Amino acid sequence: MRIGMLGTGSVGQTLGTKLVSLGHEVRMGSREKGNEKAVGWAKAAGPKASQGSFADAASFGELLFNCTSGRHSLEALRAAGEPNLSGKVLVDVANPLELSKGAPPTLAVANSDSLAEQIQRAFPKAKVVKALNTISAALMVNPQRLGGDHDLFVCGDDAAARRQVVSLLKEGFGWRTVHDLGDLTAARGMEAWLLLWARLMGAFGSADFNLHIVRG
Amino acid sequence: MRIGMLGTGSVGQTLGTKLVSLGHEVRMGSREKGNEKAVGWAKAAGPKASQGSFADAASFGELLFNCTSGRHSLEALRAAGEPNLSGKVLVDVANPLELSKGAPPTLAVANSDSLAEQIQRAFPKAKVVKALNTISAALMVNPQRLGGDHDLFVCGDDAAARRQVVSLLKEGFGWRTVHDLGDLTAARGMEAWLLLWARLMGAFGSADFNLHIVRG
Repeated sequence: MRIGMLGTGSVGQTLGTKLVSLGHEVRMGSREKGNEKAVGWAKAAGPKASQGSFADAASFGELLFNCTSGRHSLEALRAAGEPNLSGKVLVDVANPLELSKGAPPTLAVANSDSLAEQIQRAFPKAKVVKALNTISAALMVNPQRLGGDHDLFVCGDDAAARRQVVSLLKEGFGWRTVHDLGDLTAARGMEAWLLLWARLMGAFGSADFNLHIVRG
Repeated sequence: MRIGMLGTGSVGQTLGTKLVSLGHEVRMGSREKGNEKAVGWAKAAGPKASQGSFADAASFGELLFNCTSGRHSLEALRAAGEPNLSGKVLVDVANPLELSKGAPPTLAVANSDSLAEQIQRAFPKAKVVKALNTISAALMVNPQRLGGDHDLFVCGDDAAARRQVVSLLKEGFGWRTVHDLGDLTAARGMEAWLLLWARLMGAFGSADFNLHIVRG
């Protein structure tokens, strides 16, 4: 499959490398073709990896990942170009972290709206699925890092798109439990998890943790 | 110990009954002495249980629980009276659910503030500890309902108050893991959990679940 990876940070690089190792072709996009981090990643990740602008990556991919920082996601997706998003599954991994206000971290959008919904409203023909934003990059593609079961969530307005993402997470990345939370308004809860996650990271001094839902 | 339980709903009744069973004297408070639910609870819970106004319960208790609905908590605490709260540990179990806007549920305060912080600002001499708001009433006093480990959180500005609450949760209620998240701003994360909790409850069709933090 051809995959467009928007964003050159550790999340984009980690997901991109894993997807290449699964046999997919991955093009990493950034503001300008030739971005140093994207070029370095593509060289290291081998012949199935390439890089270009946001629009290059989005037009290349049949499946897209938004791994840009939340505060720049809408701008990055506008640069990717609406026609390059239309009809495609767009996995939104970003968190709308408000970094300008210092600790404790807050969200730029929360409670009655979410970044994922903002993206869906801006690009109504994309099939936005929120996923993977609840954990560190290293865990995303290697759930076995932690002993014991732990869980992911997905939500989105298109049920077939949710199923496709769940299948990739389970069969591709090795996740055992992915809770399907339904429509995209559940992204409010998935993004709000960051407020608790950040405090747990502070208490533990490590991002190497996740939650497991225990049921009666 | 003498405990003041503010609120007559299932949370107040469940916690009150458990605390009586542990040998404490519990007075349940409501807007007016003689509240039908409080009278019924006190009769069923035995000689160590009593009921009265919010002020009666707060003046009686050496340790206080706020189990009123979040939208009425500040008003209930004002009725309890500031002198009756001063110097006491006040366990805030409430969630600031905004019920007027329909599904999906939203919070009346979130992200950069929390109900617990509002209460602390209104009553600076109380020692507010946020706890137990992350689960259903039935689970609060019976973690063994679920198989496997699952966790609670506490936060508050007074470290000794947090330790006292952790000790009650562990030794009194049987919780094994209670994460101390530090100062009261962590209540933003604990209250925001409700946004994810509500979607999980919708997906499961049951409130009989909790989260466990799995660490690397």
